Amino acid sequence: MEGLLTQLIDRCRPFARSGKVANYIPALEKADPDALGIYILDRNGLHAQGGDSQVPFTIQSIIKPILLLQALMDNGEEFVRSRVGVESTGKPFDAINISNAVDQEILSEHINPMVNMGAIVMCTLIRGGNYQERFNRLLELTRKLANNPDIDVDEEVYASELATGNKNRALAFLMKSCGLLEGDVEEVLSCYFRACSIRVDCRDLARIAFVLSNKGRDFMGNQLFPARYAHYVNAVLMTCGMYDGAGDFAVTVGVPAKSGVGGGIMAVVPGRMGIGIYAPALDKKGNSVAGIRFLRELSKQLELSIF
Amino acid sequence: MEGLLTQLIDRCRPFARSGKVANYIPALEKADPDALGIYILDRNGLHAQGGDSQVPFTIQSIIKPILLLQALMDNGEEFVRSRVGVESTGKPFDAINISNAVDQEILSEHINPMVNMGAIVMCTLIRGGNYQERFNRLLELTRKLANNPDIDVDEEVYASELATGNKNRALAFLMKSCGLLEGDVEEVLSCYFRACSIRVDCRDLARIAFVLSNKGRDFMGNQLFPARYAHYVNAVLMTCGMYDGAGDFAVTVGVPAKSGVGGGIMAVVPGRMGIGIYAPALDKKGNSVAGIRFLRELSKQLELSIF
Amino acid sequence: MEGLLTQLIDRCRPFARSGKVANYIPALEKADPDALGIYILDRNGLHAQGGDSQVPFTIQSIIKPILLLQALMDNGEEFVRSRVGVESTGKPFDAINISNAVDQEILSEHINPMVNMGAIVMCTLIRGGNYQERFNRLLELTRKLANNPDIDVDEEVYASELATGNKNRALAFLMKSCGLLEGDVEEVLSCYFRACSIRVDCRDLARIAFVLSNKGRDFMGNQLFPARYAHYVNAVLMTCGMYDGAGDFAVTVGVPAKSGVGGGIMAVVPGRMGIGIYAPALDKKGNSVAGIRFLRELSKQLELSIF
Amino acid sequence: MEGLLTQLIDRCRPFARSGKVANYIPALEKADPDALGIYILDRNGLHAQGGDSQVPFTIQSIIKPILLLQALMDNGEEFVRSRVGVESTGKPFDAINISNAVDQEILSEHINPMVNMGAIVMCTLIRGGNYQERFNRLLELTRKLANNPDIDVDEEVYASELATGNKNRALAFLMKSCGLLEGDVEEVLSCYFRACSIRVDCRDLARIAFVLSNKGRDFMGNQLFPARYAHYVNAVLMTCGMYDGAGDFAVTVGVPAKSGVGGGIMAVVPGRMGIGIYAPALDKKGNSVAGIRFLRELSKQLELSIF
Repeated sequence: MEGLLTQLIDRCRPFARSGKVANYIPALEKADPDALGIYILDRNGLHAQGGDSQVPFTIQSIIKPILLLQALMDNGEEFVRSRVGVESTGKPFDAINISNAVDQEILSEHINPMVNMGAIVMCTLIRGGNYQERFNRLLELTRKLANNPDIDVDEEVYASELATGNKNRALAFLMKSCGLLEGDVEEVLSCYFRACSIRVDCRDLARIAFVLSNKGRDFMGNQLFPARYAHYVNAVLMTCGMYDGAGDFAVTVGVPAKSGVGGGIMAVVPGRMGIGIYAPALDKKGNSVAGIRFLRELSKQLELSIF
Repeated sequence: MEGLLTQLIDRCRPFARSGKVANYIPALEKADPDALGIYILDRNGLHAQGGDSQVPFTIQSIIKPILLLQALMDNGEEFVRSRVGVESTGKPFDAINISNAVDQEILSEHINPMVNMGAIVMCTLIRGGNYQERFNRLLELTRKLANNPDIDVDEEVYASELATGNKNRALAFLMKSCGLLEGDVEEVLSCYFRACSIRVDCRDLARIAFVLSNKGRDFMGNQLFPARYAHYVNAVLMTCGMYDGAGDFAVTVGVPAKSGVGGGIMAVVPGRMGIGIYAPALDKKGNSVAGIRFLRELSKQLELSIF
Repeated sequence: MEGLLTQLIDRCRPFARSGKVANYIPALEKADPDALGIYILDRNGLHAQGGDSQVPFTIQSIIKPILLLQALMDNGEEFVRSRVGVESTGKPFDAINISNAVDQEILSEHINPMVNMGAIVMCTLIRGGNYQERFNRLLELTRKLANNPDIDVDEEVYASELATGNKNRALAFLMKSCGLLEGDVEEVLSCYFRACSIRVDCRDLARIAFVLSNKGRDFMGNQLFPARYAHYVNAVLMTCGMYDGAGDFAVTVGVPAKSGVGGGIMAVVPGRMGIGIYAPALDKKGNSVAGIRFLRELSKQLELSIF
Repeated sequence: MEGLLTQLIDRCRPFARSGKVANYIPALEKADPDALGIYILDRNGLHAQGGDSQVPFTIQSIIKPILLLQALMDNGEEFVRSRVGVESTGKPFDAINISNAVDQEILSEHINPMVNMGAIVMCTLIRGGNYQERFNRLLELTRKLANNPDIDVDEEVYASELATGNKNRALAFLMKSCGLLEGDVEEVLSCYFRACSIRVDCRDLARIAFVLSNKGRDFMGNQLFPARYAHYVNAVLMTCGMYDGAGDFAVTVGVPAKSGVGGGIMAVVPGRMGIGIYAPALDKKGNSVAGIRFLRELSKQLELSIF
């Protein structure tokens, strides 16, 4: 398997050149655009890795499925559904998703957990006495899913996100003004920015993906959350996980996945394996170019498509 | 199995009351709102049926995956992709999907094969000397997929669609004006309306779904189209098949499916079975109420979700 | 005065170079991009002209205020208002103006008489047994306003408009599907296309503008329509007459006006004069570049702004 | 004249019942919905008043033309135009005016000085070392235009605006994220909220309107600003001053005007008079119901329409 991975890495690395490392904050800009790493964990507990699989990077939007899990675990499906819809928006992840241009209405059923609006709302659904406590619970869940107690926040990235996050501030104040967001906007946002700044590597993502692929059970057999929450998260990843490139990914790769502007992709192959990828050069939609290319090739080779 | 079906039919039939039979043309309005039929065909060639599984109805939007198949078979993936995108629109199936409100641009990458705009374009991608010939090839493919040479057009419905289809005319002329549609608009539309007026029953849909679930091979083992086209169609069904309710369906049922305003649903359980449903009372998004309810229950009972 | 006109013509003619003659139909493309003509008729019955004031051109959108007049004369203000709103759309003149992207609603209060949707509706408001008769009444009104019985249709332009008018067909079928348009779409459109193809010159426009500037009374003192209809039309011209450049025109020229893609501008200086301009090179919004420039200079020199 | 005013007040007061006093902050909610006051100042220096003309209220959006004047006086027309467009948006005053739903672009040419986005930008265009200084210059201009040194801020309203202004925060952060807004968002907003909270009465508005109607000259003959800025402001008021009801107001009243949710309307009759109205019950678009009614009647009686 590792031979196959090396071969695919060599073949896919050049595709990074058509992409660009995220540059809205200095900390992300420093990433090596040619980096490409992969880690796979299968249901037999076997793992394989290749390339830059040990380079740390910030989780960014890949925290969204974990936020969704935490929200589900803390509130149940029905309540979460009533606050954040599950339909694709047909728009970019940071879009201002106004349901009605004239009435300037925003409806919870027109946002989903994989766009920024939905993720910001989910921060308010985490249980906790204050936002420090809420964030810590999310961090703990992330560590537990990845079986890695060392996972922590990249404070430099967090500070940058906080300084530059005006579009997210706009989204949050807008939802606040429409009654879709409770609590202090800046506190909610600091939780969200902190969540995006969690530092992981390919192995972490592969392990988290594995639990999702395995109906909530980690590779040591611990049931970390109910199987139906795995269904919920995977279904949402399938339809909305790859930003406004979800349809293309479904056709060409065919598994639930989530990408982040930090360059990571977490791919869930239900019943078979969890995959973590790192390749920071992004296409226009914010997805990792070489990472998607790699997953396409891997999916063909291993017949991963669930369709 | 048929015991289970009967039990679920009894449980789900009352949900039809919250829906309404499509009434934009008289021929559809005549449908019995309480009807509920199901037909299942599994990979072992076994079938089961229940309720009103033999009532004929018009295929309506369920022709869209077949149109997509025909377009793929006639043009290959790359060409089809260049003419009709694969991303969710976040809008209703008959939406005017303008990419840019100011410049009034419509881009092929913002339409998909499961919305009317995309389906109308796909009619122009069928090979044939004229639209009679093109339509006949589509009808032949439908008959072949369903292994039913008797499938034909409901001429009354066709005449009504033709008479009332002004929104679709608007969509077609709009695409024409943007250079997205070739040929004579009224001819293209007559092909599209005729395609929507094809009459099927639950068994037909189950058999078509079966071929899609079985990588292009029918239950007698004939390879009707390449496996990768089944992947393509199923992926598109998953992300866009249930109109702007696709996300909800992915979460609660978890299989590729397509509904039509005639009351049909075709559900594809990859590697396992094809399902045809009939229940004509629709929700606001145009999906069969009792049909979706039935599929939810069935998915839970048989663990059909691919996630 | 004619000295001033000549001087301004010389100064403004070069601005045409930044524009482009309409080229969506061959007949318009033949226009001389450097042409610039003007005709002024003031309340004392005096007139002045300069440049290419005798070149004939098609009236195009400048028929819209006449259509509005005819609709008002045939139906009164209240009824016309209930069918076509009076607010700016903030969009191009041929925009698909959907009030609600999700529900795909189009409301009459979100269209106005100066955008194509509104103008098409107004064709249905002209009284007449059939569309030949309706169009003839509109043509008669145009001749009467211009005091020129020779005004007629440019049949070549009409044939081209008919052949290429798919965007307008889309608009009409869309309104039809929303219940905003009565009658046979192709008949309504043929009336609309024919109306746009009426051939006029600067003197015709100046005379029509004069009647509007003079509370409905022509320069011989005949009251052609009630003063309040002049108010109505002029107000709509002010807020919506220059396409999505109406605000700029209000600031820099400051009088009600209407432009057409044929290169004409009709400007109404209430209580003072009517102006007809011809300069076929257009800016991106479809307004005559040199024509607007000319009107800016003239407005400064003669203090025409009503503000 | 005062007899006419009294008569019109009696006739128009009942129309207030179809409206509602603004209730998004408690301070506004206390207003008497039946109040109706008017103050007129004509070019001969004569004035007339009637009804509740001495009730103080907050200026709210009527500060926008004064903000525009200040911006013009501090930066000239060209610079102001480059930062804030002059076209109608076709949307409500507090709309999020995204030019392109997919690219989430906001262009300065698609906002105008009469919508909140434009007004917030104009706060950044006032000259001054800090926002205290900038605001003081705006307040001074307001006092000078109204010839009333006692005009000041309603601190209760200001505090409420600050506490509830999340939609405006969203607009400001959005523009900030698009590079349309310089400076600290909260400081800019505090200037804007403070500006909206300036307390005036009908006489103040009439006097301000008078200067605008009189080419920048007050009733004592002082030239407070260049005549061309009066043209600019009046033209913008005409096309965008009455929110998304500007077209209707142009047709039925026919003069430049600005309304505010505090219940005020300032109407400018170029070359003739300035009018201040107070009637706090608002229609759905945020315009004073009885105030508009009153102006319609007055316009008919005195033939005020500039068309």
